Parts: sequence; C-alpha cells; structure tokens
Amino acid sequence: MAKNLTKRSDDYSKWYNELVVKADLAENSGVRGCMVIKPYGFAIWEKMQAGLDKMFKETGHENAYFPLFIPKSYLSKEASHVEGFAKECAVVTHYRLKNSEDGKGIVVDPDAKLEEELIVRPTSETIIWDTYRKWIQSYRDLPLLINQWANVVRWEMRTRLFLRTAEFLWQEGHTAHATEDEAIAEAKQMMNVYAEFSEEHMAVPVIKGTKTETERFAGALETYCIEALMQDGKALQAGTSHFLGQNFAKAFDVKFATKEGNKEYVWATSWGVSTRLMGALIMTHSDDNGLVLPPKLAPIQVVIVPIYKGLEQLQMISDKINPLVAALREKGISVKYDDRDTQKPGFKFNEYELKGVPVRIAVGQRDLDNGTYEVARRDTLEKEVVPATEIVSKVEFLMEDIQRTIYQKAVEYRSAHITEVQTYDEFKSILEEKGGFISAHWDGSNETEERIKNETKATIRCIPIDAKLEEGRCMVSGKPSSRRVLFAKAY
Amino acid sequence: MAKNLTKRSDDYSKWYNELVVKADLAENSGVRGCMVIKPYGFAIWEKMQAGLDKMFKETGHENAYFPLFIPKSYLSKEASHVEGFAKECAVVTHYRLKNSEDGKGIVVDPDAKLEEELIVRPTSETIIWDTYRKWIQSYRDLPLLINQWANVVRWEMRTRLFLRTAEFLWQEGHTAHATEDEAIAEAKQMMNVYAEFSEEHMAVPVIKGTKTETERFAGALETYCIEALMQDGKALQAGTSHFLGQNFAKAFDVKFATKEGNKEYVWATSWGVSTRLMGALIMTHSDDNGLVLPPKLAPIQVVIVPIYKGLEQLQMISDKINPLVAALREKGISVKYDDRDTQKPGFKFNEYELKGVPVRIAVGQRDLDNGTYEVARRDTLEKEVVPATEIVSKVEFLMEDIQRTIYQKAVEYRSAHITEVQTYDEFKSILEEKGGFISAHWDGSNETEERIKNETKATIRCIPIDAKLEEGRCMVSGKPSSRRVLFAKAY
Repeated sequence: MAKNLTKRSDDYSKWYNELVVKADLAENSGVRGCMVIKPYGFAIWEKMQAGLDKMFKETGHENAYFPLFIPKSYLSKEASHVEGFAKECAVVTHYRLKNSEDGKGIVVDPDAKLEEELIVRPTSETIIWDTYRKWIQSYRDLPLLINQWANVVRWEMRTRLFLRTAEFLWQEGHTAHATEDEAIAEAKQMMNVYAEFSEEHMAVPVIKGTKTETERFAGALETYCIEALMQDGKALQAGTSHFLGQNFAKAFDVKFATKEGNKEYVWATSWGVSTRLMGALIMTHSDDNGLVLPPKLAPIQVVIVPIYKGLEQLQMISDKINPLVAALREKGISVKYDDRDTQKPGFKFNEYELKGVPVRIAVGQRDLDNGTYEVARRDTLEKEVVPATEIVSKVEFLMEDIQRTIYQKAVEYRSAHITEVQTYDEFKSILEEKGGFISAHWDGSNETEERIKNETKATIRCIPIDAKLEEGRCMVSGKPSSRRVLFAKAY
Repeated sequence: MAKNLTKRSDDYSKWYNELVVKADLAENSGVRGCMVIKPYGFAIWEKMQAGLDKMFKETGHENAYFPLFIPKSYLSKEASHVEGFAKECAVVTHYRLKNSEDGKGIVVDPDAKLEEELIVRPTSETIIWDTYRKWIQSYRDLPLLINQWANVVRWEMRTRLFLRTAEFLWQEGHTAHATEDEAIAEAKQMMNVYAEFSEEHMAVPVIKGTKTETERFAGALETYCIEALMQDGKALQAGTSHFLGQNFAKAFDVKFATKEGNKEYVWATSWGVSTRLMGALIMTHSDDNGLVLPPKLAPIQVVIVPIYKGLEQLQMISDKINPLVAALREKGISVKYDDRDTQKPGFKFNEYELKGVPVRIAVGQRDLDNGTYEVARRDTLEKEVVPATEIVSKVEFLMEDIQRTIYQKAVEYRSAHITEVQTYDEFKSILEEKGGFISAHWDGSNETEERIKNETKATIRCIPIDAKLEEGRCMVSGKPSSRRVLFAKAY
C-alpha cells in the first residue's frame, strides 16, 4: 500500500491526524466529537487495559460499575467540582420518542420530560460518593479501593482523535480512607503505578509531579500527575491522581465510626487515565513511515511475509513457516503469517510498517536455499539475515531490545529538551525555537502563572516530585523562589 | 452474619431481590432504573466477559468501540428497527449547564440546544452500519467480524436488578458477509457459542431455537436464541443472535464489489448477551442459604477459615495454611484465607455460604492434631474430614465435581419441567400448577400466539432447533401443525 503520510517536519499535527486514520487506529464518526476506535486501535487499548488492570488488582483494588447518568442536583453538591465539570456536558431531558405527525420520522415526545435532568457522567465522583454513603459505616469498611472502566462524555468544542474527544474511554479509581496520610499515600501510589505502566509498557518516559493550584482537578486538594513529552516539543498529561481531602465525604455526608467510636468524615482519592494514552503512545515513538509500537503493546508482534512466485513455491515456504509460527507462539509471541495472495510483498511491507509491527520476517526462495530468514526491525528499520537455527532466540531478543531501544530514544529526546532558563526573555525564545520542558523559577502566584500562560501559551506542567531545593528568583516577577517548576506548551 | 433471606417457596421474587443485595452483587442507585454493580458481582461479570471474549476471538472476531450516541435520524433509517427500538430511550437535547440566576444551583442552558437530538444507544446497529459503509468496498473486506463491549440504555418502566435495568452492560457483535449462507452460518455459530458458554461456564442448560415472527428482533429476518429455565418455572432468554438479511445494508447503503465486479448489498448478523446473564446464573443454582456459584465463575473458589482461641493458636494454624494457600494457587485455584479477628467463624461461614463460595475449608486445633481439614461444599452443603496429604487433589476434584453436579441438577430440573400437552385446557392447568416449558402444537399464526399470550401470559419461547417433525393439530385452533414449539411464562 502507498502511505502518502505527511512528514512530521512538514506538519506535525497533520502527520498525527493522518497516521491515526491510516494505521487503522480510529476515525471520526457521524456524531460530533465522538470517535470510532477501530479493531487495530482497540487491540492496543485492550493491552493497555489488561496491563493497568493487573497493576490495580496487585495494589488491592477491585472493579465495580456505577451508573452512566448523574442527576443534575448531585453535581451541585461539591462547590468547586461543579464549577470545573458541570458546564459542557451531555444533558438528557426526555425519555421517549414518538412518530412525527407527518409520519415521516420520529420526534421527541414532549410528554416524556424528566422531572430532573440527567447528565452523562463527565467523571463519577458525585454518583460514587452518593453510593459510598451506604457502603461505609465503620473503620472495618475502610479502606475502600474501587476502580471502574467506563465511558465518559465532556462536550469539547475542538476535538482530536484520542487526544480530546467528546466521548472517551477511561478508568477512574475512587478510594476512601480512614486517615489523611493513608489517602495521600494512595494518591502517590497510583501516580507511581501510572508512571511505571507508562515507562515499562508504553516505553514513554514521564516526569512525576504535582499540579499548581490553578491546574488542579476540580475538588482536589492536591493533584499528582505524570507528564510526557511529544516529538514536537509539546507536553502531554498522561495521567492524574487526586487527593480529595474530605470534600466529597462532606458533600455527600460519608462518615465512619472509628475504633474509638467517634464519627469522622472519610478521606478520598480519585485517579484516572484514558484513551488519551493512545495519543501519547503514537506521538512518542512513531516516525514518517508510520506507527512504531513497543512490543509489549503491539497486537501483532511479528509478521511473516512470504515472497514467492506460484502456489508451489508458496507451499514450500508455508511448510517451513508453519512450525516457526508455532514455535514463536509457544514463547508467547503473537505472530501473523500473511499469505494473502491478493497483495504483493511490497504492499504488505508498507502496511505493517505503517501499523508499527515491531518485527517483520520475510522469506523467499533464496532463504529456503540458504536456511535463513530476513529480519527487519520497525524501530530502526535495520534488516539482517538470520540463520533458521537462531530465529526464535533472535525474535525473543528483539522483543526486549526494541522495547528498550525506543524507551531509551524517548528518554534521550526528552533529556535534550529540558532547558533551564534564568530570564523570561530566554524562556520565550527557548519556547519558540526549541520547545520542550523549560525549567524555571516561579514565584508561586496565580497571577504570574496566568500572565505567562496568556503571553506565551505555556503552562506549568508540574512541580516535579524530585525537584531539588534551589534558591532563585521568579523569572517574571523577580520574587524569591525555592525550586524550579516545569513549563511547556501542552496538548 | 445473619442471613435473614426469604425462602424461595415463600416468595421467589423477593428471595431473588434480597439475594442480589445481600450477596453484594448489585444494588439500585439514585438514578431511576440504573444499578450499581458491586465489586463481588462485577468480579463474576468479569469472568463471564473473559470467557466469552476468548470464545469470540477464537471464532475470528475482533473488538472495537463505537459512539455512545446515535443521531435521531439514524434510527429512522431502518423501518422495523425504529418501531422496535426508538421509543423508550434516553434523549440528549442540550450540551451545556449554567449557574441558575439565583446562584443556588445549575440549570440547562437554553442556548445550548442541539440541532439534532442524540439518543443514548439502545443497541448499535444504526451507528455501526453507518460506519461499515466506509469500511466495506470489496469482497476483500469481508467478512467483517466485530464485537463491542458496551453500556446501553433502554428506558424500562419496571426494572429489576440484572434482569431488566435502564442501563445495562453487554456485548454486541455486528458482522457483515458476502453471502446469505455465510451470514446465516455466523448467526447460528454465535447461538452455539452462547449455548456452550452457558452450559460449560455457567452450568446453565439451555434450549437452542428460533423465535417466532412476533418475538424477533426489530429488523431481523431470523432470531436464534438460547432459553434457560429458572427454579420458579419461568423461562429466561439468555442470549440472541440475529440474521438481519440485507436490511441494514440497504438502509445504510453498504455495498461491496464482488470478485466478478458487480455491486451487491452485504448480509448482516448481530448478536448479544448482557448482564442479564447474571440473573440467569443466580436463579438457576442458588438456594435458601444464598448464592451457589459454578467454580468456573466464582471470584473466590476456596475460602479457608481458621477456628482458634488466641493469637498463638492462630499462628500455628496460619503456619499450616500458608503453604496450602500457595499450593492451591499453584494449581490456578483462587483462594481466600480469612483470618480476620473482627468476626467469629460462624459469621464467616454464613457470609461465604451467602456469597456462594464453592468450597470452604475449616481448620481448628483438632485438625492440627489429626493432620486433617474439614471440607464443606456449597452446592450440597456436605462436609467431610480430609487428610492433609489429600487436600489439594480433593479441592481439584471438587472444582470439577461441583461444576458438573450443579449443571446436572439444573438439567434434571428442566427435564422434569418440560411437559407435552395436547389440549389448551391441559396447557392452562400445567402452566398454573407446574410451570416450566410446555411443548405444544401451534398453527403458526400471529393471532393464535397473541391470543395465548393475552389469555395466559405464556409466550412462545422458541421453536427448538432439534424439534422433530410431528404431525399434530394446534391446541387452540385445531389447524394442522408440523412440530411442537415451547411455551412458557418468561422473565
């Protein structure tokens, strides 16, 4: 297949939009802002889900499911939450359609108006905490460690596949604890789980940190986050974990009896990652030839393409390939043997390059004669001839080496794109000319943060967890600052 | 814990409602008709999903995800579909809320009215076939074998946990084929997959058949189904698979180029099972003591309860139990060792009985002295003392034996509750006095079917696939009939 993919250097944004569609990951639907996740894209998301779900369960969490709809009044119960979330959302006002009087279509039945409107969940804190009131009576019921895999809807005006869609898929963890310390430890733990998943499964390096007050989740006392850096120098928030204090417990009156018999409000966290991770995955590794996928998340890890003339030769090749397919599957490697006779090898090579299959094995008459395979790795595009006796161990090596190599490449890109600046002028010129994270002193005020955002479109991505104490002066106001924060333009 | 569970013989319906809540499976939420699936219930559903998903993939299907919302106009495109589905549903009319003028709450922003209303999907044929038009051009694109795991909403007036809820979770397969025969074979295959899952994983015997015209899915030419029988003698439709002909292809203009270069409409199927399966599972096996779960779907397969006085004795028991837990897990058996000191053994016994844990192992001082365990199986409530050397193999045996035993028990119950009748009077008296499936001759007319339904509330559950040809006369009209069909009152 011909790729006709825009080059990243020509138009990064266009490259991304084209790649998502051409690699069969997702496409826009007939419903404004809602995407269709195609089978190949969904297979990657399923692997992400499986990896995360295992980590959630290993840290003691259980899955449950809460209603799609939230009564409008619930949203008003936590004051800052409603400000942040209740505005742009899908509102259900009626529960019935009827045939139109002209008989040509259907219309909303005005008699079927809901007494109270229902909101399609933009996030589920309110409906979940309304439920937790019934589940939590005593310290014996705590901690309550629950996760939900669900769809949510936020009526975004400008949407982009995976990065910002009206409906998206995510998981949301909602936990309840007896003490403040335990809730904070949980929120930090989940940030660490997200970071580990991102780095070890997605091969996407991230910086762990906390958000500034203005960037915090609506209703949180602290938001922990992981921030990744895309190849165009823009940051992407890949996951957040919130310490919610007692805000939701108070709003929904969730108290527990302590061991001593007192009644206290419980402490809460929530945390989530979404199909946005797909955007981070695509933009971190892919190149002008198409997707580059880490072996751990690739739906097809190895593709085998026969190069043949005539069915007799194909049969000879297949006789050799079938045991290889079995041997690789035995090792837990997912293999596709593409013996379609409707497409030429060149078409297939392009297709699997575009789809980011980590390893391609080609085999033709010469390989049969020599007892070899031609092995190509997607990340570096390097090819080599491998003896048949070594092919399984070679593929096993490549599964690990590609995972490591693309992670290392992303780490190096990021290291080269974290720039320390002293002055606001320097900040502005780096932002325009180089991009990436900019490490700078900031006076801690909302005003300065707001001014920088208005003037440059850069935001404070996070206050890194491991930032060292360093006396300095805010690059804008000159006021004292005790440590640097990371700025960037962001998705 | 005290169970206080209503007896089945006193009030089957009340027994079910109480059991679902007391066994921590699900509960009603603050949103009319929408349930909360609690962690224990969701863990069972996850096992069902995993089992089904594996079977779908083994039969060549891939997962994808389509939008939650369906534009109102899409529903009108397939005439019989809109009649069956478009009426009782959640309608999104606005996309924004705003602060009310009195500042005390939020109201729907009248300026944010959608040009076209969006329907929360009651099923996804229309949005999916609108997408398939873009995906299918040539015979090379067929068959298209796609499944989606999703939530759907149907505005039911009378709801019951799992059995009938406004929002429920399900999977919906939607396939496209080049020929009629292939589509029919697919629809039958999925009925068989559902039957196999139901019998082998859920231990719920089912009858395979086709629906009558009036009971068919809106838009289908044939509906294949599996029908189970509950302990109160009522039937439950556990899964359906539809041959849709070319109806949706025509409604959404989905044509493909054949090998010969002609343009033809594609042939379609759709098939689904939902969280309703949880209802079938609960009602098939459970008893007056609580849930009875098949080992293959039990979140906890074995619970171990120590019986001790003082921490020293607990420690001795734990030293013996920990290696047993490891040995059972090694065999792939999920084990919980409940050493909570906040509850007495009797409380724990009741709790795990209520929750249907298949095997309970108790161990006290005497067992330590004798090198034995007390093993209780949930299905028969039988207890026996097992030597330590045999405990692992005993548990392995019980995993298989309980699965087999409860299936066999359900088969026997069903066999005893399929009654052949010759006359309508006999039919009515069996229906009232005994219940179950009634096998009778029917003249094939909608009128007779409707009359029976109105007069007795019994419906034709299916025309069994394996019904033998048998000359007879309709029990109501006396007209000729060539085979018996199965009637029952149903959930």
